Amino acid sequence: MKTKMENLEQVSSNKIFGGQQRVYSHESSELKCKMNFSLYLPPQAEGGDVKLPVIYYLSGLTCTEQNFITKSGFQRYAAEHGIIVIGPDTSPRGVKIDGDDESWDFGVSAGFYLDAAKEPWSKNYRMGSYLNTELYDLILKAFSNVVDPDRIGIMGHSMGGHGALVSTLRNPGQYKSVSAFAPICNPTACPWGVKAFNGYLGEDKAKWVEWDATELVKKYEGPPLTLLIDQGAADKFYIEKQLLPENLVEACRSVGVPVILNLREGYDHSYYYISSFIGEHFDFHAKILKA
Amino acid sequence: MKTKMENLEQVSSNKIFGGQQRVYSHESSELKCKMNFSLYLPPQAEGGDVKLPVIYYLSGLTCTEQNFITKSGFQRYAAEHGIIVIGPDTSPRGVKIDGDDESWDFGVSAGFYLDAAKEPWSKNYRMGSYLNTELYDLILKAFSNVVDPDRIGIMGHSMGGHGALVSTLRNPGQYKSVSAFAPICNPTACPWGVKAFNGYLGEDKAKWVEWDATELVKKYEGPPLTLLIDQGAADKFYIEKQLLPENLVEACRSVGVPVILNLREGYDHSYYYISSFIGEHFDFHAKILKA
Repeated sequence: MKTKMENLEQVSSNKIFGGQQRVYSHESSELKCKMNFSLYLPPQAEGGDVKLPVIYYLSGLTCTEQNFITKSGFQRYAAEHGIIVIGPDTSPRGVKIDGDDESWDFGVSAGFYLDAAKEPWSKNYRMGSYLNTELYDLILKAFSNVVDPDRIGIMGHSMGGHGALVSTLRNPGQYKSVSAFAPICNPTACPWGVKAFNGYLGEDKAKWVEWDATELVKKYEGPPLTLLIDQGAADKFYIEKQLLPENLVEACRSVGVPVILNLREGYDHSYYYISSFIGEHFDFHAKILKA
Repeated sequence: MKTKMENLEQVSSNKIFGGQQRVYSHESSELKCKMNFSLYLPPQAEGGDVKLPVIYYLSGLTCTEQNFITKSGFQRYAAEHGIIVIGPDTSPRGVKIDGDDESWDFGVSAGFYLDAAKEPWSKNYRMGSYLNTELYDLILKAFSNVVDPDRIGIMGHSMGGHGALVSTLRNPGQYKSVSAFAPICNPTACPWGVKAFNGYLGEDKAKWVEWDATELVKKYEGPPLTLLIDQGAADKFYIEKQLLPENLVEACRSVGVPVILNLREGYDHSYYYISSFIGEHFDFHAKILKA
């Protein structure tokens, strides 16, 4: 399949479950660096004469675009449902900022899918606008022959679960379906979030609530939405209160937003856990996107 | 689940598809070093009052015990069928021999599942006896409460496909079912095999044929056996004639051993390819092991 964008470079393509698992790179104007993203074209995309639904998948801390496509086994389900799947990277790459590689939960691989407001991060760390505007528009244009712009969903894991929820709540209607594995549900109230928001957004907590799903859902006024939240009960980060799904559920119930919280006994935070339930998440998204 | 072996150490355990993906380590007397292996216990093993079939999976060049368990997605099928799956490492580890890390296709991660006859390799590089005697017996003893000794199969990829075929043909009846993804079918006739056999076995080609599936099948006199060979048609190593499945098929046909060769259009040598068809291989093994 040829794309219509000249600044898009195909890095790799491997056949899997009858479709093509691709990685592309492009120069991002929001992030001012070269970025990779993954794109799975299910077998139904061949020929390019039918518009398919799309799911974005946002990865967690320490990941690149590779973890999800090699470890989750999602391609089987994407092929069954005929869904295109796109996996962005987790932060700007190759941009050298003092302190960007000092910790695994801030800086490189830890962009938190937000737009930084504080120097020196505000120049490049604009993952919110990158994902929801630049990459989103690029996909619509470059793959306009196979992408149905009216049937786009989003999911994610951990930091990426936060990203999926926040992207949906901040951009009403842009994502028709949303789910998350072990998401950071209330970043203003957990150590990971407090560190990241202090670093990227500064001390003004009025800015923090704009990137916190538990806060955002309380004032959500977009189209009807059901949140699907999945959580391993043996997940160390859940036990350590980094994820706080109960806070999000309580906020949803306080404003009448439907939410499903599936607690999975014995499961941890790893891709072993994700791979066990990603089929269920594809079923959930397919039911909405193919309704 | 407790094991009965005191020299067995559990390195990790993660819940996946209702079962447990474990990694164990132990001191190997054959290899004279500490070795890891993976073990998947499907949900049916819980309680330990039913004996389940077992499949060994042998990995290819450059792999450890990790690649298969993180990338193939096999756990879904093992859980569906109620099969225990064991994945050994690909060479001795932590044994320093001059030249053992100079190339990716010889030495570390490239043990070729044979017993080396040539110094300095013959002391440690005894993966054939390690797999088919030491580890095999250890599993029977340590997991005797869940393993059915009469229902054991084997599969592998590339170098590990060679290992699966050769282990089955050299030890008639030990493995009831065998299949391989992109196996090195005729190592005495391809560059990888010639390099490895020269290095591990020396110049005496009478020794080489004892570790070559295409040669071994010609004199196979064990219980009836069907070989399932899977091959991606776009596999670079197939095109470069490292794998030579046609030679094995011809040898099988010459002696009346049933063989199935599935050529998969567009698929390469990667785990993207394996994950697409490993479900079919589990179906094949289950049909035999659960007959």
